[in-house]
Amino acid sequence: MPGYSDRLNLRIKRLRTSALVGLDPRWDWLPDEIVRSATASGGTTFEIQARAFEAFSCSIIDVVASLVPAVKPQVAFFEQLGPAGMTALLNVMKYARKAGLIVIADAKRGDIGSTASAYADAWLAGESPDAAPYPADALTINAYLGKDTLQPFVDAAVSRGAGLYVLVRTSNPGAAVFQDRASDGDKLFETVADVVQSLNNEFWPGDSYGGVGAVVGATWPQELSDLRSRMPNTPLLVPGYGSQGGTAADVAGAFAENGLGAVINSSRGINFAFRRDDLASQFGPEKWRDAIAAATHEMIADLREHTPTP
Amino acid sequence: MPGYSDRLNLRIKRLRTSALVGLDPRWDWLPDEIVRSATASGGTTFEIQARAFEAFSCSIIDVVASLVPAVKPQVAFFEQLGPAGMTALLNVMKYARKAGLIVIADAKRGDIGSTASAYADAWLAGESPDAAPYPADALTINAYLGKDTLQPFVDAAVSRGAGLYVLVRTSNPGAAVFQDRASDGDKLFETVADVVQSLNNEFWPGDSYGGVGAVVGATWPQELSDLRSRMPNTPLLVPGYGSQGGTAADVAGAFAENGLGAVINSSRGINFAFRRDDLASQFGPEKWRDAIAAATHEMIADLREHTPTP
Repeated sequence: MPGYSDRLNLRIKRLRTSALVGLDPRWDWLPDEIVRSATASGGTTFEIQARAFEAFSCSIIDVVASLVPAVKPQVAFFEQLGPAGMTALLNVMKYARKAGLIVIADAKRGDIGSTASAYADAWLAGESPDAAPYPADALTINAYLGKDTLQPFVDAAVSRGAGLYVLVRTSNPGAAVFQDRASDGDKLFETVADVVQSLNNEFWPGDSYGGVGAVVGATWPQELSDLRSRMPNTPLLVPGYGSQGGTAADVAGAFAENGLGAVINSSRGINFAFRRDDLASQFGPEKWRDAIAAATHEMIADLREHTPTP
Repeated sequence: MPGYSDRLNLRIKRLRTSALVGLDPRWDWLPDEIVRSATASGGTTFEIQARAFEAFSCSIIDVVASLVPAVKPQVAFFEQLGPAGMTALLNVMKYARKAGLIVIADAKRGDIGSTASAYADAWLAGESPDAAPYPADALTINAYLGKDTLQPFVDAAVSRGAGLYVLVRTSNPGAAVFQDRASDGDKLFETVADVVQSLNNEFWPGDSYGGVGAVVGATWPQELSDLRSRMPNTPLLVPGYGSQGGTAADVAGAFAENGLGAVINSSRGINFAFRRDDLASQFGPEKWRDAIAAATHEMIADLREHTPTP
């Protein structure tokens, strides 16, 4: 079974970029055209919003599928619409996979034993989109409960050629409160990072990159660079570029010299590019897809200029 | 708005028990009657299983609604069935609320900023079942990302009279790996506990119990007792009684002298009581509801004997 990282890196090398586009639909910010069309078909508020989220996300996929290796739907925004939202999410994920994109479900799940297995079964389709109801190539997970609680996810990742991204150092301002607590010289996030790297050593021995990745925020350039060295076989998922303040220079340390080793996420900056003053003037409200394309090209160029290019 | 803890404690005092029944449906263990009926109606595998999970969970609710204050659906088991599973979960939660039960959604969610708000909007209905698509009175959450990421959940809990249970010291064997890392004399879970108590001090001042609870495993009696003193205004949710090895004596330290302050969860031990040798012989495969009732009465009696009775 080709591993997750092999499949991801193949696309990264072909497209020569590690730009990852988050899919974060928000009702209040959608293009008028999407809102009008979804509303016209009627139904409950949740059904209307779910239809709009699906149409909007699929439009973004149409724009970016030939430009970037992967997309990252934010599960929370679909979950808040009830089962209708989950149906929309599922359709978006299937649509992205059919378009050839790697799909990283940003769900930040985590639980113990058989419950963790149930989450893995929900999300980790891996190589075969039919292997899970929500057909993700990879899933973000939370390790607070302990190393033993990661194992059911790792087992599923191994058997299905799927990937995981464990939260290590998150992009929010308060990330340090718990994650930086030091014990015997190591901070908590460093201990979590060591566990992640050890799982790659054990379950993907000899691979340049294993199936267990780490989430490390672009808002912490020093930690990002330190963690790149500390977890040499661990693929990184870097949120916080763009809207949250991280720059291309800030994320340069996430990459190996050959330009592999990380994907850099932008959500709002791409999804709602048509609301950015300069792009709004350039494209107007109707050509919002063109604004999204322009912002994607801009991000790719920015990364090529300031980080090692794959 | 009456707070979550007020509503919970009212039911605990009326029923004179803090027993919490987890709803953890598993396809392979369901009563034959449930499987046959769900299969006869046809549909996809997910639809059939979701229908069975709903029927089984609602049957448990019928049995326990007059005996215990609350139920705790495990979201992962429904999520693994795709959108059909989420519809079943929603129906189960509505059914439980109509039966007068407090509903604690065990979803262990957690994310940053507006994403955390979206999860709160998905789950935290609080006092009014119509205030969220999944009408939970309370939600389990994960604090690894930082204190700032709890705030959107706390804001929703305050405004809707809802509750939260933050993972503090979980019941799994490997819980200590990260949770017990000591820093300046305090273990990580103690630092998380202090944050939880501080949120209750700040947002529910003067209340015997605030809206932010803590999850502490029955498998760690000493920590449970220490945490009860450390978080005097924090309601506890104690998993791990029964199947995971925790006894009533182990959880006695979770309670204040008046018998309030904690709910003790049993999932498998109640849900699949009809598969326990002695109850299987006593009731046979058809009277599985009676076996569930017997196991519930047994748990309540066990708690009354070994812990302070509300």
